[in-house]
Parts: sequence; structure tokens; C-alpha cells
Amino acid sequence: MSTLESRIHTAVARVREHWRGTRLIDGLEPGPAGTAALLDVARIYRANRLEIGRMRLLSGRAVAGLFFDPSLRTHTSMEVATGRLGAHFVYLQGGQGTWGMEFEDGVVMNGTAAEHIREAAPVLSTYADVLAVRAFPKGPNRDETVIRGFAAHAGAPLMNLESALAHPCQGLADQLTLSDLGGGDFRGRKVCLTWAPHPKPLPQAVPLSVVRAAILGGADLHVACPEGFDLDSNEMERAASFCRDTGAKVTMTRDPNAAAEGAIAVYAKGWGGDDHATHSERVAKLGQWTVDDRRMEKANAFLHCLPVRRNVIVTDSVLDGPKSRVVPQAANREPVQAAVMLSWML
Amino acid sequence: MSTLESRIHTAVARVREHWRGTRLIDGLEPGPAGTAALLDVARIYRANRLEIGRMRLLSGRAVAGLFFDPSLRTHTSMEVATGRLGAHFVYLQGGQGTWGMEFEDGVVMNGTAAEHIREAAPVLSTYADVLAVRAFPKGPNRDETVIRGFAAHAGAPLMNLESALAHPCQGLADQLTLSDLGGGDFRGRKVCLTWAPHPKPLPQAVPLSVVRAAILGGADLHVACPEGFDLDSNEMERAASFCRDTGAKVTMTRDPNAAAEGAIAVYAKGWGGDDHATHSERVAKLGQWTVDDRRMEKANAFLHCLPVRRNVIVTDSVLDGPKSRVVPQAANREPVQAAVMLSWML
Amino acid sequence: MSTLESRIHTAVARVREHWRGTRLIDGLEPGPAGTAALLDVARIYRANRLEIGRMRLLSGRAVAGLFFDPSLRTHTSMEVATGRLGAHFVYLQGGQGTWGMEFEDGVVMNGTAAEHIREAAPVLSTYADVLAVRAFPKGPNRDETVIRGFAAHAGAPLMNLESALAHPCQGLADQLTLSDLGGGDFRGRKVCLTWAPHPKPLPQAVPLSVVRAAILGGADLHVACPEGFDLDSNEMERAASFCRDTGAKVTMTRDPNAAAEGAIAVYAKGWGGDDHATHSERVAKLGQWTVDDRRMEKANAFLHCLPVRRNVIVTDSVLDGPKSRVVPQAANREPVQAAVMLSWML
Repeated sequence: MSTLESRIHTAVARVREHWRGTRLIDGLEPGPAGTAALLDVARIYRANRLEIGRMRLLSGRAVAGLFFDPSLRTHTSMEVATGRLGAHFVYLQGGQGTWGMEFEDGVVMNGTAAEHIREAAPVLSTYADVLAVRAFPKGPNRDETVIRGFAAHAGAPLMNLESALAHPCQGLADQLTLSDLGGGDFRGRKVCLTWAPHPKPLPQAVPLSVVRAAILGGADLHVACPEGFDLDSNEMERAASFCRDTGAKVTMTRDPNAAAEGAIAVYAKGWGGDDHATHSERVAKLGQWTVDDRRMEKANAFLHCLPVRRNVIVTDSVLDGPKSRVVPQAANREPVQAAVMLSWML
Repeated sequence: MSTLESRIHTAVARVREHWRGTRLIDGLEPGPAGTAALLDVARIYRANRLEIGRMRLLSGRAVAGLFFDPSLRTHTSMEVATGRLGAHFVYLQGGQGTWGMEFEDGVVMNGTAAEHIREAAPVLSTYADVLAVRAFPKGPNRDETVIRGFAAHAGAPLMNLESALAHPCQGLADQLTLSDLGGGDFRGRKVCLTWAPHPKPLPQAVPLSVVRAAILGGADLHVACPEGFDLDSNEMERAASFCRDTGAKVTMTRDPNAAAEGAIAVYAKGWGGDDHATHSERVAKLGQWTVDDRRMEKANAFLHCLPVRRNVIVTDSVLDGPKSRVVPQAANREPVQAAVMLSWML
Repeated sequence: MSTLESRIHTAVARVREHWRGTRLIDGLEPGPAGTAALLDVARIYRANRLEIGRMRLLSGRAVAGLFFDPSLRTHTSMEVATGRLGAHFVYLQGGQGTWGMEFEDGVVMNGTAAEHIREAAPVLSTYADVLAVRAFPKGPNRDETVIRGFAAHAGAPLMNLESALAHPCQGLADQLTLSDLGGGDFRGRKVCLTWAPHPKPLPQAVPLSVVRAAILGGADLHVACPEGFDLDSNEMERAASFCRDTGAKVTMTRDPNAAAEGAIAVYAKGWGGDDHATHSERVAKLGQWTVDDRRMEKANAFLHCLPVRRNVIVTDSVLDGPKSRVVPQAANREPVQAAVMLSWML
């Protein structure tokens, strides 16, 4: 076994010391120590991607990725990471090339859905060593039906590739990016998460995952948003329960300038608030929340999960300027996902 | 060469003794002995999946899978089996991301179809070592146009992934499942295939493949269906021609209770009968054909190819109960398909 | 290292002597010597495909293929070539399962496009070692927006899989096919490119790539087309600038019979001319341009890039006759694309 290979085995063993779970749903599952250990695996992968690729560490393994919604980064980075590790990634599109799926129990299935999650999840679990699922919220409930259904019925390890309330792989990548910006970690460092205008009332999956990542990494987090756009209070509380462990602090504010000032990163994201019906008209009056050069003046770096709407969320000038780190941030998706897969399948 | 590897080579050689064909269209092609040999390869694969995965036995090989219709199990199990064997699976969606295809000879192609099967099949055969095609029947003819077109013009070995009249990989998997239920084989054991209600007049591909599998394995097969829903008589006769070889018996009945009683498996499936126009109204009066706990009382196991409509084909209680074997049945798709690919490409 | 492996390395080194570029956009980039060297790599691959497949020369590498338009040959041959070389191919469908993409600079992105090429191209470049993009022209401009956008913003090597004005992989395959027909090369040999009827005013990507391939290989090229269907003069001039180097000659004619007579190959293709609005009515009067047995009488072989409209572009009789080489021509796509990938990633 090469030195590199044994370093990977050691790093993966450390993950397992802290986390033996096989569900990554909201991203809090590995806890602060498990997450830190995962990031160490990710750093080894990132620094040795091609050499690791030649090792085919997960040869003979299979990952099934089921996408009910569009994806560029998530699909590509998952498939590339899986392929580089020597395993096989099956890309499945929900409702396109597959059967309509039913998630409710006890239903008489004489409508359009041909397949029930109670069969789909266990069957896919027999073929694949890992399931990965993306399903944005649908309809007025905006709940976690799909990912919860898979969690309940899948025998295989399960990775959430973005649901209504969480995007844990984005969270892991963001924690890695913030660590890079902090010079190794970002404990006690000021991080700004700011609401920004977006034509649609998007789910809060990404901003909540940013909050979780910042708390798991011990940040001094400042969350800025206009009135009516506060993040889900239950999810905020659950994440905040880790503050004591990690030393993280969370400050909520209506002042985006104060939140940005002195931050190692300004993380912008649009999301929907407490009233989706009036989203457009409210957003029309909140143009001052677009991140521009002035907002970035006393901040160190600009982050966004992408795709980003230019000149709505953030100006061209910031995105094309020296403080934008959105490309290396997106690049970090591949190594963190590789780390999770190694932890589950090596 | 490892012991396991040489066991695989020996088992594959035994398949070739009995079957040197490169077309799996209706599933009768390998005959009883060839099928039995394929199932032996499948059993070795199933028991050693991960170790075989590391061998990359079909490294450098490519399989092209062309799906004109939706799929969850077939697509995933084909792609996973191919990937685990070290080969590459290309997933192609007919009419989505590919060109409209013409199957009729002598046509002036100035309409919407841009590509003729006379080019598509031989060209794909130059790239791929195996072609695999799924095409459900379309229009009033419900015939085998697509798979027959590929069979006529493809130079590469060809696997039918479900056509109007056959689903041979499902048949192979079912034969393996019935063998498991019979404790190694199911010669002379009672097997029940029962029609069940379904909102659509589905093709008979699966029930006919169950009949073929049962006959190839020598079952005492009881087929129960309401009047007007008899299976295609030509296909039944062709399958029955193997009864003498295998000792199989086929009994047709209108009494689902009698058919189920004492069976090692009750295999339920909805299909269309002799009049598709009145399907819905006829099915509305046949609710007693839904498989429930009472029907299963004196039977050993419940089978269905999936996807299954809960509380239409079969009750939740049966599906979620101890007699349901639908998940291991679906799991058997991967090893039998791996066996066919090994037989063609090792 | 095996003899075969070292032959590949030597052949790839020869490509790099002549061409160190990482953009294959119009196909002229490698120049005559670089193209010839690429074809040598392709010939080695073609003659040893399975043995090379077992070497996994590009293990751990990843190629992202983004298709904004349908494909059968291009998708399959790219994915098969990538897989056989041991690398992983990610198939992405533009606008289906991915985000709507914006290509214009300075736009306020409050419409339907969620993603800008300025992020998409660099991000994909961090995951993949090579990007490959297909985008036919859209709208009245029929310009090269998409491939130019990727060329401007991608950090990774970039392969054009057909744009408005070029299909360089088809060009490379055609040059290989013409070389086969010429007995090794086709310097000074007569090659005929002929316009043929097609219901749609297709882009000139393929015929222009045929012209480039013929010129790079030193052909005596005869291009026949009706009035009003002349090929783009700028592109013709750019290609013709290589005539001096290669000894190629280009003759334009309105007489398809004269062009075909004595040619080693008649390459037929439909394309749109200077007025798309009247395309249909003009084509309706040009039925005599359909290639038939009489046209082929004094020519050696028939070529077409496929998909081909039978009995519109060319008669069944020619396509199914002994002079048709369209299947081996399509087969040549895999080895030339493998050659480019080896040149960029080995």
C-alpha cells in the first residue's frame, strides 16, 4: 500500500471514530468532530486527485443518483468523484425516464404514479452501495417528503443532494472553503450570510446549510436579512445546539453592511420568507440588498453556492473581481463528496 | 487467476456449451440447459459481487442501452452490473437527446424521423460490444417493430430489455427467484401466475416471460385470469413446446384461489386482454382479483416484477407482510444480466 | 510498459510536437501535421481497441460532455471512447436536468436563465479534465455563441462536438475514412462534396468540416451545390489558406455529375443556403440532387455523416449497396476522439 493510500485509510478511520452513521440528510449528522475528519479526507483527495484516481479505491462499487430537479454542479461533481474513485455512478432523472413515484402510505395507486417509495428505495438499495437523492420542495407544503421517504425505506447509505431544508454537501464544501479562507480553520472568525434579491421565493436549504456549516466550524456568524425573511426557527435552533461545543456565535441583523464588515467571507443567497405570494413585490423594494463593491469593501471574499443571478444577487463587478471565490468554492464540492463516499465504502 | 475467477470462466464455458447465440429477445433462446447454466453464473456473481467488482473482468468493453420507455430497475441494474464488471454502460434515451427513428423500409424520410434503424443499429454495433434495447409497444399494432429492427440490423449481441411480447431479463431473474424459493430448483413445484387489476391494458411481455421462465424451469404452472384476458396463444404454444424437455405442466384456470393454493409463489401481474377499449370498465368489476391476505393464505411467497400499484394489484398488507419477496426478486435482475454479459463478452 | 503502450506514447508525443493546443473548435487548430499525427494515434487505437481498453490509460480522468442538442453517434462514441480509455464521461443535457444558461455579458439575470457561462464553464473545468460541448445554432443569428462562450471561460481543454460552423470530430473521422479509401492517404485524390436535398435548412457545420478535412489531407476537392447554397465564404477562405501547405485544390461547381465522376468518395450533405425562408420551395425543385446509382456510377464510395434521410439525400439503393461506407465512416468517430483525448490527457 502506498503512503498516500495508507494516509487515506487513516483519515477515513478517523471519520469512523466520530461518525458511524450512513445518513447525510441535514449535514449535522457527523457532528463537529466527524465533519472535521471528513474535511481532512477531502483535503487529501483535493491535493492528490489524479494519483488517487489511478488507485480505483472503490472499484466494483456503485452509486445511484436520483435527481427530481435540475443540477449542474451536484450531478457533475458527484459523478466525477465517483468515477475517479473507480466506482460507477448511475444518473437517474425522477419523472423523466423513470416512473412517477408515490410517497404517501396506504394510497390506492390507480392514478399516475406507478411506483411507490416503499419498493423503489429498497430495490435501488440492492443495486447500489450508496443512494444520493435531490428533490426540491414542491407545492404549498414545501416539506421533506422525498428525502424522508428514502431515509425511511432505503437500506443503503443515503446522501441528500438538496432537499427543502438542507443541502449538506454544499454545507461541507462551504465549511472547507471557509477553512481555506481562514487559513486552515475559521474558529472565532466573522462570517457573513446575507439575504439577496432573487425573483423566486427559493427554499432555505442552502442558507440553512451555511448556518450549520458555520456553526460546526465555530464561526462568529452574522446573518443579515430583511424583515419577513428570517430563516426557519426550528432549524436554526437545532443548528445552534452545537454552538456550545464549537464556540460558534450567531448574530441576526437587518443591516447587511454591519454584517459584511470585517468578515472573512460574505455569503450571499436569495431565499423565500414568510409570504411567498407577495415575494416579487417585496423583492422589488429590496434592491439595496444586492451585493456590490461597496458592501464588499471591508470584507475579504465573496461566496455563493451557484448558479447565481448576476446583477440581481450580486453585481458583475464583484463576481468578476478579485474577491470572488465562487469557482474554488464550487470546486470543493468534488472532494467533500469523495470524502463521504470513501467513509461509507472504503 | 484466482479460484473465483476460474470458477467464473468454467461456468461461462458451460453456458457456451449449450448456447452460442447472441440474441436474447424472447428468452427462450438459451433453452433449458443454457438457462440453467446462465443461472449458475448469476449465482456466483450474486454471492461474490464486490470481489468480482474488483476484478474488472470486462475492462475495456462497452454496452449501449437504448431506452424508448421509462425504467428504474432495468436501467439501474444494467448499468450497475456493467459497471461492476469493469465495462462501460452508455444510457441513451430514445426520442430524448437522440434522433427520431424510422423503422419501416423504403420510406421517403421527409418527415420528423431523422435516423433509420438501418444505420442506427449497425453504427451503435461498431461502438458497443453489446446493445440493449427497451421499447414498449406503441399504437394499435402493439407489435415488436423496434426490437425486431435491431435484431435485423445490429451486428453486436442484442439484449431485449422489454418489448411488446417479452422481458427476458425479468424472466431470467424470475427463474432464479423461483429456484431460490424451491430450494435450488422448482421442478414439479406449483407456481401460480395470476392476472390482477391495473388501470391500463398493459402489454403481456412480463406474464409471457413468467410463463417461459416457469416452463424452462420445469414448473407445475397454474395461470389464472378472467375471461377475455387470456395470454397470447401463439406465444403460449411456442413456450409450451419446451414442456416435454423440462417436464413442465401448464394449467389455465378462471379460479385465482385454486391457482394460488399450495404454490411456492403467487406471481401477480396486470395485463390487457382482447379488448383494450373496454379495459377500464371490465377491470372495475374485477376487484376480487386483487391479491390479498386471504388469497395468499395457502401460498408460500408473493412475487411481482415491479413497479406495482399498491391496493390495486395487491394489498399493502401482502406487500409489507412476510410473504412478499418482491425486493429480492428485483435484486436478482443484476446477477442474471451480469451472467448474460459475461457469457457474451468474457 | 508493453510494446503497444509505448507505441501509443510515441504517437501521442508526435502529436504534441506539432500541436500543443487545448481547443478543438473548428478543426483547423492541429494543422496538417498535427492532424496527421492524431490520425496515427487513431489508427493504433482502432487496431487494438480491446487491448487498449484493458490498459485504462486515462484512469482517474473525467470528461464532461454537455449536449444542448440531440446526438446518437457523438454521444455514444465519446462516452465509449472515454470509458474504454479508463476515464469517466459525464453526460449533461443542456436545458434538461441542468439550468437554463445565459451567454450575454452584463445582463440583469431576472429572467429564466439561472446560470451564466462565466460561472458554468470555469466550474465544470474544475471537475472535468476535458469539456466537450454540442450546441447547434439557434434563432436567426445562427452564430457560435455557446462554443465561443465556453472557449472564452473554460480552463479545461475544450472539444467542439458540433456548433453552427464546425463539427471537428466528424472532420477528423472523415479524414481517416478518406485516407482509408485512398489506401493510406488521399493526397491529390479527387473527393466530391455534394449538396443534397433536406427538408430543413441545416447549418453548414458538417460540409465546412468536410472541406477542412479534405484540405488538411491535400485532396483535389470538388464541391457541388445549386445556386444560392454556396458555403460560407469566410470559412472557405480560412480553410483554403492551408491549400498551399498541403497541395489541396478546391473546385466549386453547379454540376454534381462532373463533381462525382472519378471521385474516391461522394460525400453528400444537406445544408441551408442564403435564404432560409424559401428553403422548402427551393428544395422541392432540386430533387435531381438526390444521390442515386447513376450519380455513383463512376465514383468509388458514398459517404454521409449520418443521420441520413433515406430517399431524400440518397436512395436506398446507394445506401444499401456495395459503395456505401457510411457505417465504417461513423465507426471512425470513436478512434479519432480517443486520439484527441489521449493527446490531451495521457
